[in-house]
Amino acid sequence: MERKGNLMTYRPDIKVFDATVRDGGLVNNFFFTDEFVKALYIANLRAGVDYMEMGYLADKDIFNPEEFGDWKFCRDEAIRRIVGNNDTDMKLSVMADVGRANLQRDLLPKEESVLDMVRVATYINTMPAAIEMIEYAHKLGYETTCNIMAISKANTPDIEEALALLAKSPVDAVYIVDSYGALFPEQIQQLASLYVETMEKAGKRVGIHAHNNQQMAFANTVEACSMGASFLDATVGSMGRGAGNCAMELLLGFLKNPKYNLTPILDFYEHYILGLKESGLKWGYDIQYLLTGKMNLHPSSAIAFTKEDRRDYVDFYHQLFDLEP
Amino acid sequence: MERKGNLMTYRPDIKVFDATVRDGGLVNNFFFTDEFVKALYIANLRAGVDYMEMGYLADKDIFNPEEFGDWKFCRDEAIRRIVGNNDTDMKLSVMADVGRANLQRDLLPKEESVLDMVRVATYINTMPAAIEMIEYAHKLGYETTCNIMAISKANTPDIEEALALLAKSPVDAVYIVDSYGALFPEQIQQLASLYVETMEKAGKRVGIHAHNNQQMAFANTVEACSMGASFLDATVGSMGRGAGNCAMELLLGFLKNPKYNLTPILDFYEHYILGLKESGLKWGYDIQYLLTGKMNLHPSSAIAFTKEDRRDYVDFYHQLFDLEP
Repeated sequence: MERKGNLMTYRPDIKVFDATVRDGGLVNNFFFTDEFVKALYIANLRAGVDYMEMGYLADKDIFNPEEFGDWKFCRDEAIRRIVGNNDTDMKLSVMADVGRANLQRDLLPKEESVLDMVRVATYINTMPAAIEMIEYAHKLGYETTCNIMAISKANTPDIEEALALLAKSPVDAVYIVDSYGALFPEQIQQLASLYVETMEKAGKRVGIHAHNNQQMAFANTVEACSMGASFLDATVGSMGRGAGNCAMELLLGFLKNPKYNLTPILDFYEHYILGLKESGLKWGYDIQYLLTGKMNLHPSSAIAFTKEDRRDYVDFYHQLFDLEP
Repeated sequence: MERKGNLMTYRPDIKVFDATVRDGGLVNNFFFTDEFVKALYIANLRAGVDYMEMGYLADKDIFNPEEFGDWKFCRDEAIRRIVGNNDTDMKLSVMADVGRANLQRDLLPKEESVLDMVRVATYINTMPAAIEMIEYAHKLGYETTCNIMAISKANTPDIEEALALLAKSPVDAVYIVDSYGALFPEQIQQLASLYVETMEKAGKRVGIHAHNNQQMAFANTVEACSMGASFLDATVGSMGRGAGNCAMELLLGFLKNPKYNLTPILDFYEHYILGLKESGLKWGYDIQYLLTGKMNLHPSSAIAFTKEDRRDYVDFYHQLFDLEP
């Protein structure tokens, strides 16, 4: 497939998607202050960010609300504390995990809600449940995406089948999600070609959500973009689970559309992200994440290694061989 | 141009080049202990690294030996303290900067020296002086490379002319050096195609030396490799000036040749690199380096920002606009 655009131009179909609160919330159980979320909302608005994800729409029957901040559940009244009616051009999104959300009970009809988009996160083997959720959210009036997680573990014929199902669904965009930070640009290129080819025919978009285990989150995002992906996920300071995400500051520094502005993000980093780091929250590239990424494993063991302040990388590496499927 | 090889195979022409002491020495003025350099030498041997750079061959008339450790000058007796006669398959290299080395006085004939390779570092406008040094080192019996620095600032016709000169020289390999960490894989692809096309015809190899200002050092190294570059520079823990280099642990985790072994490098990282970080030495990706990289500027202002423990990223960003050429 041909690359789309080049380094001197920009494509108007590109949407920058801020996932700082949602993926970053996995680092601090979503205990962000309202001041933090509001400052991020304003920084995103000034930076020209197209979508901001407010968090998860998690089921309170499954997750104890006392153990998590508001952004795990994203009830409308919490979001309105930050954004009022969001009378802006930036759209707001929420993520719903298959099996961990109750849309029928918790998702308001679009006209009563301040949210614009529901992103359904699924593994490839729960695609029918994901499509049911997408259809429901679509019927309520929302834009929808399907975020197929851990794609580095999926078999290509299964991916093709999933994409065929999604092409027939009302979903607006389908994401490549490299949950394990295992993929290299060459693989992203192949996946993005496959996604774009299938989805373009159905009038749908493709997105990319990358993790930084092997310092490839930004490179993979640029690669997917170059192959035609439109929705580009990023988080300020790479904040996110484990090795973190594609950094918003790198992405906005790269994109050529003059509507994007790096300065408000630098300002937010300086005044809010540095503070989280100093408070002891840990995320971002490190050797243990490289190792799980390289071995195409869930980062949970590397996250535990980090929490325990371990530094025995050699032992950890050899323990990982026992986890290999 | 076609890509060479794929993610399942390996190319025997690939040479992994450790530049930890040389580029890392720019962080601590080359004050490495002999224990450190010896442990690195042994780690590299066990890891299957092909070349190890011992440091610079700097002119003591220009640099005061009291201000620098031995690896700034790389005299034969210092290297032999570490490697004896280096009766191994790993080759040893030294870097000589145009205008800062006196090869006629300081470079021994190959048969009296433990070194195997001289890498001549030059800006594109001092190519005739670089070629003179390459010819001299070649005559003494060394393998040679030409490392054209700050290539993101060079004009393509000038690069073509430099490559034509080098094709006629006795140099063994020519490096793409992204000193400012300004380049994206798409640009590396174009440069690598140009280099490989010109150099292959002359029976010469191409190398890549990347910096991590925009978290692209590893991605750019993989991209250059995929386009046919054979000499791949890396440093353990990315240790190097400013944002640092392509990390050896990432590179060895990626390469498929079973001769390479990641464990000794993880062990060295655990026992030696962590200690340097804890002693207060600073290098590696950070916002200030992103900004100089994005603006295609020398990292010196970002290095000063780091030394002064500044965190006013927004002010720094706007100060950089005054430095633009």
